[in-house]
Amino acid sequence: MWKTAITKVEPNHIVTRGYRQEDLIGTIPFSSVVFLLWKGRMPNESENKMIDAILTSSIDHGATPPTCVASRTVASAGVPLPTAVAAGILAVGDVHGGAIENCAKILQRWVKKTKEEGKTIEEMASMLFSELNRKKERMPGIGHRLHTKDPRTKRLFDLADELKIAGEHIKFMKALESEFNKGRKKPLPVNVDGAIAAVISDMGFDYRLGKAFFLLGRTAGLVAHVYEEQTREKPMRKLGEIETEYDGPWERNLT
Amino acid sequence: MWKTAITKVEPNHIVTRGYRQEDLIGTIPFSSVVFLLWKGRMPNESENKMIDAILTSSIDHGATPPTCVASRTVASAGVPLPTAVAAGILAVGDVHGGAIENCAKILQRWVKKTKEEGKTIEEMASMLFSELNRKKERMPGIGHRLHTKDPRTKRLFDLADELKIAGEHIKFMKALESEFNKGRKKPLPVNVDGAIAAVISDMGFDYRLGKAFFLLGRTAGLVAHVYEEQTREKPMRKLGEIETEYDGPWERNLT
Amino acid sequence: MWKTAITKVEPNHIVTRGYRQEDLIGTIPFSSVVFLLWKGRMPNESENKMIDAILTSSIDHGATPPTCVASRTVASAGVPLPTAVAAGILAVGDVHGGAIENCAKILQRWVKKTKEEGKTIEEMASMLFSELNRKKERMPGIGHRLHTKDPRTKRLFDLADELKIAGEHIKFMKALESEFNKGRKKPLPVNVDGAIAAVISDMGFDYRLGKAFFLLGRTAGLVAHVYEEQTREKPMRKLGEIETEYDGPWERNLT
Amino acid sequence: MWKTAITKVEPNHIVTRGYRQEDLIGTIPFSSVVFLLWKGRMPNESENKMIDAILTSSIDHGATPPTCVASRTVASAGVPLPTAVAAGILAVGDVHGGAIENCAKILQRWVKKTKEEGKTIEEMASMLFSELNRKKERMPGIGHRLHTKDPRTKRLFDLADELKIAGEHIKFMKALESEFNKGRKKPLPVNVDGAIAAVISDMGFDYRLGKAFFLLGRTAGLVAHVYEEQTREKPMRKLGEIETEYDGPWERNLT
Repeated sequence: MWKTAITKVEPNHIVTRGYRQEDLIGTIPFSSVVFLLWKGRMPNESENKMIDAILTSSIDHGATPPTCVASRTVASAGVPLPTAVAAGILAVGDVHGGAIENCAKILQRWVKKTKEEGKTIEEMASMLFSELNRKKERMPGIGHRLHTKDPRTKRLFDLADELKIAGEHIKFMKALESEFNKGRKKPLPVNVDGAIAAVISDMGFDYRLGKAFFLLGRTAGLVAHVYEEQTREKPMRKLGEIETEYDGPWERNLT
Repeated sequence: MWKTAITKVEPNHIVTRGYRQEDLIGTIPFSSVVFLLWKGRMPNESENKMIDAILTSSIDHGATPPTCVASRTVASAGVPLPTAVAAGILAVGDVHGGAIENCAKILQRWVKKTKEEGKTIEEMASMLFSELNRKKERMPGIGHRLHTKDPRTKRLFDLADELKIAGEHIKFMKALESEFNKGRKKPLPVNVDGAIAAVISDMGFDYRLGKAFFLLGRTAGLVAHVYEEQTREKPMRKLGEIETEYDGPWERNLT
Repeated sequence: MWKTAITKVEPNHIVTRGYRQEDLIGTIPFSSVVFLLWKGRMPNESENKMIDAILTSSIDHGATPPTCVASRTVASAGVPLPTAVAAGILAVGDVHGGAIENCAKILQRWVKKTKEEGKTIEEMASMLFSELNRKKERMPGIGHRLHTKDPRTKRLFDLADELKIAGEHIKFMKALESEFNKGRKKPLPVNVDGAIAAVISDMGFDYRLGKAFFLLGRTAGLVAHVYEEQTREKPMRKLGEIETEYDGPWERNLT
Repeated sequence: MWKTAITKVEPNHIVTRGYRQEDLIGTIPFSSVVFLLWKGRMPNESENKMIDAILTSSIDHGATPPTCVASRTVASAGVPLPTAVAAGILAVGDVHGGAIENCAKILQRWVKKTKEEGKTIEEMASMLFSELNRKKERMPGIGHRLHTKDPRTKRLFDLADELKIAGEHIKFMKALESEFNKGRKKPLPVNVDGAIAAVISDMGFDYRLGKAFFLLGRTAGLVAHVYEEQTREKPMRKLGEIETEYDGPWERNLT
C-alpha cells in the first residue's frame, strides 16, 4: 500500500492536494501549483510572485555549467530529449545548485539558535563566521567564480522586501555577508544560490527541498539547450576543445 | 566553439533571449519565461495563460505511472533528490508522455496536407482514420486506460477556445475523435496527451518539443513525490506487492 | 587540459594503463581488465578469480529490488535500452548496494585502528559493536530482509580463503558477526554487501569504489531484465498491483 | 504478476537461468555469466573468450567521447559515483555505441536475404552498397573520425577466425568494406562498432542487444574515470575551454 497525500486518481476525476485538476488548470498560474504541490496549501499573491522569481533566477547560466554540458553532450549522442534533459538534472549536485540546500540548512539551524539563545542576528552571524574560520570550512551560498555582484541576488532580495517576505533568514544572510567582507577588497558576494536559500527559508520551506527550486527552473533551460543541440548541430559533433594529457604508465608489453 | 542563442553570460551580467535576467526575475511569470526560452519571443497574455494550463495539466497522475514509480523507487534506495527526480524523467518515453510528440507530429503533417490538398478538415480526418485502420495503427493521443472522459482534456480545449488559441489542429483532433467514436458505445476520448498535442500545435510549437511540456510539468510533481518518499517512508521499503513468477529453466547443476 | 592516467588515444593506437588495447583484447579476461582499470596494475590469477566471483555475486536478485523495478518500469514507458539500464543504476544508493561502500569504510578504519592500538581483532570488533549499540546505529553489511544465511556470502568467504586473499578485514567482519549473534535466536548474517566489502578491503581497494563492483555486476543483470521487458511484455503494462491510498486534504473548491 | 525467466529468489536460495548463484560464483568467469544472462545458456570456451574480447574492446576511448564527458562533468558537480556513471550510460545513443545495434540489424536482415535469394554474399554486399548510395544513407559501423585502421577491429576479426566463430555476418561485413573502399585513397575502415556488430551476429545474438555489449564494457571504464575525477580533481573544476558565442537576439528592454 502506497500512502500519498499528493493526488487521488479515480475514473474521470483527479484531485491534487484537495483540488480538482480541472479547477486548477487555466485558473491559477503554474508557479502557484508548484507551491501547492511542495507546501500543501495555496500561496497568496506575494508567495506566488516570489516562486516565479526564484524559478526564473535558475533557468540558465549559459553553456558551460555542468548541467548544460551534460545535457548537450548526451543529446549529441543521439538520444530522446527527456534522456538528455535528465542527464543534466543528474548534475545538480552538492557543488552545483546544491549550495541552496546546504546554505538553507545552516541558516535554518542558526536562526533557530538565535531565538533560543536570545542573541541578536549580528552576534550570531559573527559567531558562525568565526566557527567557519576555525574549522576552515566554506559557507555555501557565498562567493562566485565569475560574478563579484550577482545581479540575480540583488533582484531576489529587493523583491523579497517589496513583497514583505524578507525575514530573519535574509537578515542573517546579509549579516554574514558583512562579516565575510570586512576589510576585503575583492567582494565576496551572496550568490544566487545563497539568495534562494535565504528566501525559501523565510517562506518556510524545508531546506531538503533546496535543490528542487534550482532543478525545476533549470529544467526549462535544459530543454531549450537540448532542443537547440538537436535542431542546430550535427550528431556527435566535437564538443569544444578538450585537450587531454595522458599521464598513466608508459607503454608496455603484455607478457 | 559552442554557438548558442539562449543565454549570454558575462561578469555581473546575464542576458537570456535578449533580456537581462534581473529584468525578468519577479517581473514576468515563470510560464512566460518558459515560452520565451522555448520559442524565442515573449508570449502575449493568452499564450502565457495557456502555458500555465498545459504545465498544470501534466503535474501528477498519482503514484502508479512509470514516472512516479521510477522516482519513488530510486528515492527509496537512498540517493539525492535530483537523482531520484531524474530517474522519473527517464520514464518519459514513447508510450508515457510521448504521445504528445507523436500526436503533434501527425496533426502538424495532416493540417499542412489539408491546406495543400484544398480539402476540409473533416474529409482529411476521415482519410487519416481510414489509413490508420488499414495499417492497423493506433492514433497517439486517443484513448485512456482509466478515463472515458479525461477532465483535463475538456478544460484545455475550453480554455483554448476562450483564449482564442484554438485553431485548425484542435479542430482536426476533434474531427478525428468523432471518426473514432462513430457507432461506438464505450467512448474513445481524446486524452490529455492528445489535447496538449493539439493545443501546442495551434500555438505554433515544433512537435519535437512535445515531450518537454509534459516533462516540465511532471518534474514539479515528481519533486513532491520524492520529498514525500524521503520524509515519510523508511528507506528500501517494500514497494507494493510485486508478485513474481520464475518461468526460466529448471534448477540444474553446473557440471 | 584534462589529465588522465587511464587511456591514451592516438590515430590507430589506443593504450590503456600502459597496455595497447589490441594486446588486451582476447588475451586476458574482462575481469582482469576491470581490475587493471580500477587498480592500475594487472591482477594475478587469484585476484582475477576473486573479481569474477564478486561481479557474479551482484548480477541479479530477482525482479523486486529497486534497481530492477526502476529499469523495468522505465523500459515499459518506451525508451532505448541504455536509458532504462541507467535508471536502474541510479537506484544504487546508500541503502541498496551502498552498504558495500559504507561497510568497507568502517572496516578499513577499524583494521587500521587495530594495528595502531596494538589490540586483537576480537577486542576491536567487540569495541565497535558496543559503540554501534551506544549510538543506536546499524552496521552496514549485516542483516538481510529475506535471507538468514546468504548463500553468496559463504561462497565469497570460502573462495577468499582458497585463493589466499582472506586477511584482516574478513577476519574483522567475522568477529563482528559473532558479536551480533551472541545470544540471538534468529541469526543476523553477514549479507552479500558485507562480504564484498570485506573481500575488496583485503584486496586493497579504496572503499570509495565499493558501489562500483555491485554496479558493474548488476548492469549485466539489468540488461537482461530490460531486454526481457522489451521483448516479452506490452508497453506501459500494469506494473504489479500498487494499491494506493490518498490521505491528503479533503476535496475542496478553489475559491 | 511479473513473469521472469532470469532469477528465482527464495530464502537462502537464489537461482539464475537454472543455476544456483553459489555454484556460479567463483566457478565460471563473469563473461560466461554475462552470456548466460543474455542468451539463456552457458557458453562454450570459445564463446566465453569472444565475450571477454568484445567487452574489453569497449572499455574506454579516452576522455573525449560523450559517455566520458557526461560522466566526468556530472561527477564534478558533487554527486555519488553511480549517479555520475549513469549519466555516461545515458550517452550511449544512436550515434555513440548505437552503431552496433543498427549495423547488426542490417547485417542480420541481409544475411537472411542472401540465403532466401540464393545469391552470394559478395553480390548482396554490392547490392546493399548501391542501395545505400542511392538513398544517400550511411552504413553504421563503417568509418571513424580518428582511426583509418582501427586496431580493435583487426583483433576482434582475427580472434573470431581463431575461435571458429566467424561466419556469414563477418564475411558480409568484410565484403561490404571492400565495396566501400574500391578506388578510394583514404581508407574507410570497419570500426570497432561494426566489428562487434558482425561478431555478435555470428554468435546468434539479437541485434536489439547491440548497445548492451558496448554499454557493459564502457561501464567499467566510466567507473575508472569517475573515480579519477573524484579523487584527483577539484569539484566543479573548469571542464576544458568551452568557448561560447551568443548569437541570440540583441540585448533589449522588457517593456
